[in-house]
Amino acid sequence: MTSAKYTPTGIPLAQWARGLQKSALQEMLTLASRPGIISLALGLPSPELFPKAEISQALSRVLSTDSRALQYGPPFEPLKTHIVALMKERGVRVSEEQIFLTTGAQQGMSLIARLLLNSDGVILCEEMTYTGFQQAVQPMQPRMLTVPTDPQSGIDVEAVEFLLKRGGRPAFIYTVTDGHNPLSVSMAREKRLRLIDLARNYKIPIVEDDVYGLLYYEKPVPPLRSFDEENVIYIGSFSKIMAPGLRVGWILAPVALMPALSIIKEASDIDTSTLTQRALSSYFDTFDLGSRLETLRGEYRSRRNVMLECLGQLFPEGSHWLEPLSGFFIWVELPKRIDTGQLFKLAVEREQVAFIPGQAFAVEGKCQSTNCLRLNFSHPNTDQIKEAMMRLGRVLENQYASI
Amino acid sequence: MTSAKYTPTGIPLAQWARGLQKSALQEMLTLASRPGIISLALGLPSPELFPKAEISQALSRVLSTDSRALQYGPPFEPLKTHIVALMKERGVRVSEEQIFLTTGAQQGMSLIARLLLNSDGVILCEEMTYTGFQQAVQPMQPRMLTVPTDPQSGIDVEAVEFLLKRGGRPAFIYTVTDGHNPLSVSMAREKRLRLIDLARNYKIPIVEDDVYGLLYYEKPVPPLRSFDEENVIYIGSFSKIMAPGLRVGWILAPVALMPALSIIKEASDIDTSTLTQRALSSYFDTFDLGSRLETLRGEYRSRRNVMLECLGQLFPEGSHWLEPLSGFFIWVELPKRIDTGQLFKLAVEREQVAFIPGQAFAVEGKCQSTNCLRLNFSHPNTDQIKEAMMRLGRVLENQYASI
Repeated sequence: MTSAKYTPTGIPLAQWARGLQKSALQEMLTLASRPGIISLALGLPSPELFPKAEISQALSRVLSTDSRALQYGPPFEPLKTHIVALMKERGVRVSEEQIFLTTGAQQGMSLIARLLLNSDGVILCEEMTYTGFQQAVQPMQPRMLTVPTDPQSGIDVEAVEFLLKRGGRPAFIYTVTDGHNPLSVSMAREKRLRLIDLARNYKIPIVEDDVYGLLYYEKPVPPLRSFDEENVIYIGSFSKIMAPGLRVGWILAPVALMPALSIIKEASDIDTSTLTQRALSSYFDTFDLGSRLETLRGEYRSRRNVMLECLGQLFPEGSHWLEPLSGFFIWVELPKRIDTGQLFKLAVEREQVAFIPGQAFAVEGKCQSTNCLRLNFSHPNTDQIKEAMMRLGRVLENQYASI
Repeated sequence: MTSAKYTPTGIPLAQWARGLQKSALQEMLTLASRPGIISLALGLPSPELFPKAEISQALSRVLSTDSRALQYGPPFEPLKTHIVALMKERGVRVSEEQIFLTTGAQQGMSLIARLLLNSDGVILCEEMTYTGFQQAVQPMQPRMLTVPTDPQSGIDVEAVEFLLKRGGRPAFIYTVTDGHNPLSVSMAREKRLRLIDLARNYKIPIVEDDVYGLLYYEKPVPPLRSFDEENVIYIGSFSKIMAPGLRVGWILAPVALMPALSIIKEASDIDTSTLTQRALSSYFDTFDLGSRLETLRGEYRSRRNVMLECLGQLFPEGSHWLEPLSGFFIWVELPKRIDTGQLFKLAVEREQVAFIPGQAFAVEGKCQSTNCLRLNFSHPNTDQIKEAMMRLGRVLENQYASI
């Protein structure tokens, strides 16, 4: 009888996966998840704002009336119709057949990466970029062309033009147009138009990550997709406006890409949950998403405002930040002498408060600024924000005031 | 103002994705999903056997008591403990830290493919193989080493040995040990032990797809994973024993692989639904899965038996099939003169009954047998099975009896 003892594995991994280990960020966040710590680190929506009872009702309604809710099955068309309406609210005209349902926005990114990116291909993105995007493209080991981001107006379109003029031919340009993660900026309208033109002229598709776009706190500018439905692939999600536990997001893409997307999706996880698709659709049949969005915007705006006030009162002179127009984050630049990696350790150990040091978002370590941090205001409530900011203020005051 | 008209897309796809289009199988299945058609084609579980009311209760319980049920979050440990118990019932000893939760078994396959397979790598599998597995590895464009399968005892282990002796070094061996999809065979015990030994000696990991393993109709043999916990990566799923709409499956793998798997999973869809993980766990807290499995086995055994009876009565002389010990399918070999691709068209058009022609499962078209078909007995009830088999029998009688 063959029976193996439990020994360290000798299973050889694919080349690209050999170096895979938890990032410094993930290690830090494990540290920061200890009880008692107030976290301004992750990009979680507020659990108090989840429509728990309504989702529960929608789930029982669906389970008692629709026998296909637990089976494998094709994408649920009525949900796509609700997404058409939601996208209209965002200034985007789209029809059902241009909508592709995904298991959250992260899957959207992962499917698009597989669809467009060759092994050892090229991508154009900003120097500071959502880590989940970096992970989604990592298996293809792309070369990353990066451009800076202006803290007031977003992606440096001239730098994009320079790279393309010089012959750079990325498989696509990736950007978060509104409520940038991590930089919190929303792209200026004229930059949107220039970027659209540039990408079309050079025939480089744009992948627009708009998971924060519906959570705007001032009058919004429409996303890139509203100006170009052929060259922009748009990623949306219910995670921030409804709840992440449902795992439903969507891609808007030209109809011609749908057959290939379907096959890649099927290979990834067969279906987006037929149950949560139907529950969401049933929720939207009954409740007005418009008024829910107003509630969310109101609450998140207050949290943002509290955090901005605290920043003004408690952070050292020489600190800079933007008033974000959308999204979950405030990007803060501290005086150059402050290393936010070191600050993180002090903050967690001495004051039990966590954030994410800016460096964690740098593409291939290309960012030199060690004095930045990303603060989240969506997950903590206003009291927690005040307390967390006081604690952070104390660390800054005690450790760095005299340097 | 830049505004694109809706024109055919010029977005260039990754090399591997350029040929992607719906398979002949998918086209056929669209044809076969017309109302009025009885389908023996797909591998769907019976919707009458979904525990709808119990899942609905579990969902409301979870939503009213656990505030993390709708948030992003780490894998739900109590569910892993339930899987430990379930695996014990399957003859497998495993601890929670060797369990990795996935968005269904298909994601398990996709994650493992990314983890182990280099671009242009090599895989060893059977000539007739689950199409979802072929799709999962397709982005890496592997070379497929294939071996035949004995209809009575499963994978040809001597052919595996021959390939390895000759220098074949696949990234892994893929197999469905019990209730093979599509071949319906369960691997003989002695073959399991030989395959385990062979793979260990040549240091080739085995990926064991066991989504049907708990649905056995005769005394089962334990899976490969029960003989080797270091060199076998095991894939399981709640889709067939609970419901596919929940999208929860699992991988059993050596602990050393967990960090890399976590990163690949996070890149794919961040989390397996925190909601359905908790609902499943809550269901298992309350209900006895053992007695549910007994019910499923009883019902599917009856359906299998009805189909076997019909085969004996209605299929032409010279047809062969096996009494499957597990799973959802019966693989039938018809007399050589009958082309099942052609039979499929006649069956759908003249008698409104569908199945899957064997060729659809052939790896790189390597299978020469055009006279085979896969019949599903899990989705139709016994009356539908009788009716479908009568219709199929009529097509065979009318079209092929005189040839």
